[in-house]
Amino acid sequence: MTRRIEIVEVGPRDGLQNDPTLLPTEVKLEFVERLIAAGVRRMEAASFVHPKLVPAMADSGEIMERVPRGKGVKYIGLALNERGMRRAIEARCDEINFVMVASEGFGRRNQNASPEETADLLDRIAILAHDAGIPLSATISVAFGDPFEGEVSADVVAELARRAEAAGAVEIALGDTIGVATPWDVRERHDKVREAAPKARLRMHFHNTRNTALANVFAAVEAGVDVIDASAGGIGGCPFAPRATGNVATEDVVYMLERGGYETGIDLDAMIETARWLETEALKHPVQSMLAKAGPFPRPAA
Amino acid sequence: MTRRIEIVEVGPRDGLQNDPTLLPTEVKLEFVERLIAAGVRRMEAASFVHPKLVPAMADSGEIMERVPRGKGVKYIGLALNERGMRRAIEARCDEINFVMVASEGFGRRNQNASPEETADLLDRIAILAHDAGIPLSATISVAFGDPFEGEVSADVVAELARRAEAAGAVEIALGDTIGVATPWDVRERHDKVREAAPKARLRMHFHNTRNTALANVFAAVEAGVDVIDASAGGIGGCPFAPRATGNVATEDVVYMLERGGYETGIDLDAMIETARWLETEALKHPVQSMLAKAGPFPRPAA
Repeated sequence: MTRRIEIVEVGPRDGLQNDPTLLPTEVKLEFVERLIAAGVRRMEAASFVHPKLVPAMADSGEIMERVPRGKGVKYIGLALNERGMRRAIEARCDEINFVMVASEGFGRRNQNASPEETADLLDRIAILAHDAGIPLSATISVAFGDPFEGEVSADVVAELARRAEAAGAVEIALGDTIGVATPWDVRERHDKVREAAPKARLRMHFHNTRNTALANVFAAVEAGVDVIDASAGGIGGCPFAPRATGNVATEDVVYMLERGGYETGIDLDAMIETARWLETEALKHPVQSMLAKAGPFPRPAA
Repeated sequence: MTRRIEIVEVGPRDGLQNDPTLLPTEVKLEFVERLIAAGVRRMEAASFVHPKLVPAMADSGEIMERVPRGKGVKYIGLALNERGMRRAIEARCDEINFVMVASEGFGRRNQNASPEETADLLDRIAILAHDAGIPLSATISVAFGDPFEGEVSADVVAELARRAEAAGAVEIALGDTIGVATPWDVRERHDKVREAAPKARLRMHFHNTRNTALANVFAAVEAGVDVIDASAGGIGGCPFAPRATGNVATEDVVYMLERGGYETGIDLDAMIETARWLETEALKHPVQSMLAKAGPFPRPAA
């Protein structure tokens, strides 16, 4: 039996939130429809942070009202605090993803919290999601390096994972927020997190900022990870490196995994088409996708 | 002891040969000097093919006359046939790299030969290099996929490796000429080639056309490969996919390997500087390097 790797499409949230182009709600909804048509069954679609901080996500409530329901697609909403958690519940998100930070430098600037404070906060508000019957996941951001402090301790990451699991998170993601991870880091952190949080499902969120994202996906899959974040077209910049790319492109991940014999459920051609639509019609600027430029594995002339 | 991975810099040959900018000999020599200053000790610097076919390499004889000698730097010249081999010897290349093809479709169009014919040819002309006392290596091109025929047999690749070793090649490279390889392919082909040619040193030549190059480098290093090709800036296009990238960038490879605890002998900052020089002063167009855009691992403020 072929092993299945689940792709969590983060384009509509992480992909769009820092894009210079502010998409109208209608176009975002078309994006979601195109992703579903390409086979996506789980996606980050909303972020319940203050609209002044992330204007591109101000319509998250409306998005969640209007996305197609009942097609077996799960929509994830992001929350950084109690208010965000309550809004995500009210918006009927299928899952809530809470963001912890693995380093003080980024934590203070991004959400004014230390690593421990984000774990304390999750402890206090997890019950809201549990009461609402909504699965809770936690992303540990800057888990491989911090833009201000450099090295991040793998032990801190493991301790956050332990606390997330204890708070009832059913899935824990390691986020390489600034794209510095190497596959050796992935293997080391995976093993420590697996030991500290033995029950939670593990997910990995890689940025391709330093070209290592697919190496990291490979290392993660080899280590036993079954859930990978990616964004259509590779959209989503990195505010700490203006010329650099962020999320690894979904179609690039799908290409590698499917050529490697894994099943993702995603149609590569349709995903390449979606990346090209983002580039030419929606965002109207080039995207980072390599598959959209190079095309799939060559098919011999008949 | 830290394991050392040798980077073979291919920018001055594979990187420049298809570039839209034709560099003057003087600028090529400056490129070589910059590479040496950054720590490069082995590079592809010349190609002895017909100047009508590859005009960018027409000055290969002059380049080999004028490169700095006696600094412990080894210059590799490329040959596809007897005439090329004789010219490479005459030009006093430190090593000659002969190109075999793993697939008929590409082989016919690139050098008018089948896989077997390239092996037969190497058999006949290897003695010229041996007599001249020049180490001979062989690159098996399109070893992971062919732009015209699609799939390439791993057994054909292994058989070519066996014949290259029998002809006296001390090093064998698998070339992912069109950038389709996945790390699982790398592992499989490595193992088959290792078995078919147990004595030769193995080298890997990856293109990042579909974003998999660093994943492939990781898989190769994990499999035991100690020699990796890369080009400064990631220069070198792919004539079969005009919008796509070719060689993986040296600085991207160096970043991943050094962060992973390996030693390359290459100064990352100097290599990033070289990539930027290529972009702004030499080629005057953007290059594919991710490190040149994102910068190295963040250093904490003092």
